[in-house]
Amino acid sequence: MVKLFFYPKSIAIIGATEDSKKFGNAVTSNLVRNPKLTAKIYPVSRSSSTILGLPAYPSILKVPEPVDLALILVPAKYVPQVVDDCIQKQVKRIIIVTAGFGEVSKEGKEIERVIAEKCRQAGIRLIGPNCVGIQNVEIGMNASFIQYPLPGKISMVSQSGSFGCAIMDGLKWNDLGMSKFANIGNAVDVSFDEIIQYFHKDPDSQVVAIYLESVSDGKAFYRVMKEIAPDKPTVVLKGGRTAAGMAAAGSHTGSLASNYRVLKAAVEQAGGIICEDIEDYITTLKTFSLLPLPQGKKIGVLTNSGGAGVLYSDSAEELGLKLAEFSPHLKNKLKPLVIDLVQIVNPLDMIAGANDENYYQVTKAMLEEDSGIDIVIACGVYPPFLGMTFERNLQGMIRAWDETGRKKPLIPLLVFGSGYEKVKEVANRERVPVYSSPHEAAFATKVLIQRWNVLNRKKNIKSFN
Amino acid sequence: MVKLFFYPKSIAIIGATEDSKKFGNAVTSNLVRNPKLTAKIYPVSRSSSTILGLPAYPSILKVPEPVDLALILVPAKYVPQVVDDCIQKQVKRIIIVTAGFGEVSKEGKEIERVIAEKCRQAGIRLIGPNCVGIQNVEIGMNASFIQYPLPGKISMVSQSGSFGCAIMDGLKWNDLGMSKFANIGNAVDVSFDEIIQYFHKDPDSQVVAIYLESVSDGKAFYRVMKEIAPDKPTVVLKGGRTAAGMAAAGSHTGSLASNYRVLKAAVEQAGGIICEDIEDYITTLKTFSLLPLPQGKKIGVLTNSGGAGVLYSDSAEELGLKLAEFSPHLKNKLKPLVIDLVQIVNPLDMIAGANDENYYQVTKAMLEEDSGIDIVIACGVYPPFLGMTFERNLQGMIRAWDETGRKKPLIPLLVFGSGYEKVKEVANRERVPVYSSPHEAAFATKVLIQRWNVLNRKKNIKSFN
Repeated sequence: MVKLFFYPKSIAIIGATEDSKKFGNAVTSNLVRNPKLTAKIYPVSRSSSTILGLPAYPSILKVPEPVDLALILVPAKYVPQVVDDCIQKQVKRIIIVTAGFGEVSKEGKEIERVIAEKCRQAGIRLIGPNCVGIQNVEIGMNASFIQYPLPGKISMVSQSGSFGCAIMDGLKWNDLGMSKFANIGNAVDVSFDEIIQYFHKDPDSQVVAIYLESVSDGKAFYRVMKEIAPDKPTVVLKGGRTAAGMAAAGSHTGSLASNYRVLKAAVEQAGGIICEDIEDYITTLKTFSLLPLPQGKKIGVLTNSGGAGVLYSDSAEELGLKLAEFSPHLKNKLKPLVIDLVQIVNPLDMIAGANDENYYQVTKAMLEEDSGIDIVIACGVYPPFLGMTFERNLQGMIRAWDETGRKKPLIPLLVFGSGYEKVKEVANRERVPVYSSPHEAAFATKVLIQRWNVLNRKKNIKSFN
Repeated sequence: MVKLFFYPKSIAIIGATEDSKKFGNAVTSNLVRNPKLTAKIYPVSRSSSTILGLPAYPSILKVPEPVDLALILVPAKYVPQVVDDCIQKQVKRIIIVTAGFGEVSKEGKEIERVIAEKCRQAGIRLIGPNCVGIQNVEIGMNASFIQYPLPGKISMVSQSGSFGCAIMDGLKWNDLGMSKFANIGNAVDVSFDEIIQYFHKDPDSQVVAIYLESVSDGKAFYRVMKEIAPDKPTVVLKGGRTAAGMAAAGSHTGSLASNYRVLKAAVEQAGGIICEDIEDYITTLKTFSLLPLPQGKKIGVLTNSGGAGVLYSDSAEELGLKLAEFSPHLKNKLKPLVIDLVQIVNPLDMIAGANDENYYQVTKAMLEEDSGIDIVIACGVYPPFLGMTFERNLQGMIRAWDETGRKKPLIPLLVFGSGYEKVKEVANRERVPVYSSPHEAAFATKVLIQRWNVLNRKKNIKSFN
């Protein structure tokens, strides 16, 4: 069972140290310094008898209690012996963080194969080697040498540890966080697919984020995707989409470019979302974390900037989306809300003088149940005149969203400008996403509609059965 | 001469007011509050005798001195009379900020045509109507109602005022600024092309930024682009690339999608750079402002994160770029600089433990004259362990760049993460660009190589003549 990795009651760190220049120190202090974690921590070190205030043991065999999870950080040459000790100690789970195995040489590959085989025979599940580790924010466990995300509902499995770091920070900037994180390195036992299956079952993992560079068994991956994607938004980014990227990933299978096309089609067919770059990936995670799904695909746009409306329309069409035509009913509602110069068309350009009250009223008219609009894009550029502020316009939109029960997705496209810190402050406090470029807002629109389509398909299949 | 608009010695503001809810106030205070501006300011107001501490005049005819530039902000219905007064006063240049002319109705179109004709007969050049105005940072003149950029060497002409705002703020975040800015609205007299031609002649305009939504005379625009682009990096973004975008821009010419393809081909043929979104546009302006051009197209990549190297390689290939093969000479130089686990290939993945000293040495090896590398991409993700910091790694790169005379372009790709504020601080202080995503870094690489190609072509043509 993968779950025990994420919910151990006792953890040994083999290779713990007080030397802050070593990964063994990073992992130990990440575990020890989190007051939320109630699991027992046993540092194991050949040279120290206390580490970060805890008693340390010269070998795992000297640890007086049973150990659920053993983290191994000693140099590669000592790892086989340490694994043997772990087997003797009857630990339940092992994570080998140490690098220098199958990823560097044939001999390393053979050594890790033998280790995996021994663990299998002993009934011990194994993550690694060559990984940054795992995290479970629910219980305050950072069993890795990287930073700790904010708490949240996204769970991520990544074939690159550093990519995980980047995503955690990208999410943090949006005041979003994670539930679980795993980087499993060479994956000699526990596989990438198993982690995804665990996230599927885990009730705290509500949005699933996947970064992969290679897929060993395409069909199996497709099956896993088909299980999870209809139930949970599942967002995939593949590094190594091109021949150059594959080469950089150290992968040398044939027919490189076609591989990615096949994978992309498979993910989308299974109901997942595929992204081509980090920005789109963060955008998608943010969107599923903060917005409700639409009940249709009719897009309505309002703006104080003609340019922003134009560029959003371009990006939307480039992503295969279409703006709605305003119904006569909506037109009648909008007309008295804007000045005479404004033409009542979609996008609705309220012109530079539009203030927070205009944003409130027009956004609300589009969000109301009978508007004929399913998704509202409220655009603005920073209005550096007439004493207006960026965040006040956002607050106008939010008021409209709150008063209509946050039922329809609201996409505030506030083009990056002065005072954006304040905009982020308001957005984070009110749990509203903001999008800083036309492409970003259009991509958010696209994934919402894509998800609505997936759920529709699922519903139709169910009613057919 | 367009130049006089940007270098007036005296400016009248017709429609000046102390009411902070009016555009006439924004323009007046933008002009009055800049201590650098030495031009004389004459507020003209029917209702006040002093405005922001300056004596105000009931009519331009009462201004006691000659007026180079008259800014008109009175309501549309008063504009024809005010223009007549300006003609009588023999002002040299007029900017009509007021909206509500050709952009809203046929009558408006006729009124602006008559105004333009009268000015032409009087020998007065006219910008507008329906515009935000112009700026010349060199003399401290913000003759517009929008914000004022930092000083810099980019000059911009934009068919959307608000898009100009967004770019100014985007540049500001990178500590970059502008020399001149113009938004000319309905352009009944001074044309978009004339502004570009002026920027071509203006020695302070070293990078030229263009945002357009429609081109009235494609051939003329192409000729202007062909004049300027070989001499100055000229960066174009078109709003209204798609049918939806064109509709949003209020343009109704036929064959919409093909238009953009033609324009794009023409801009590139002329030697300009075309961008498809705001992010790429800012990236390009930043790149030309801060980096030298390469002397070839051999790309070398180093990283502390496999994922970042992979994603950069993907983005590079997707943009038509190719990573170089390291020469045996460079390989020999690199080998002793990294730990044994590191494979000496491009991208060079120095692995998570790489510190500022590693960054310094490896970046320097690639920047040195004999490296066989023309452009260096130094990637990093935030290293949340071993006491390393993001900005110290950047400082390592910068040291290498400084010691090699900043001769080759250095593209620091530091994937957005914790402590990015400090990274920006170092980057801005040291006048080094940073790029926060693989796509952004790849796009910067692409435009540098594109520019190198244009200059090569120019050189070849010259040596042929």
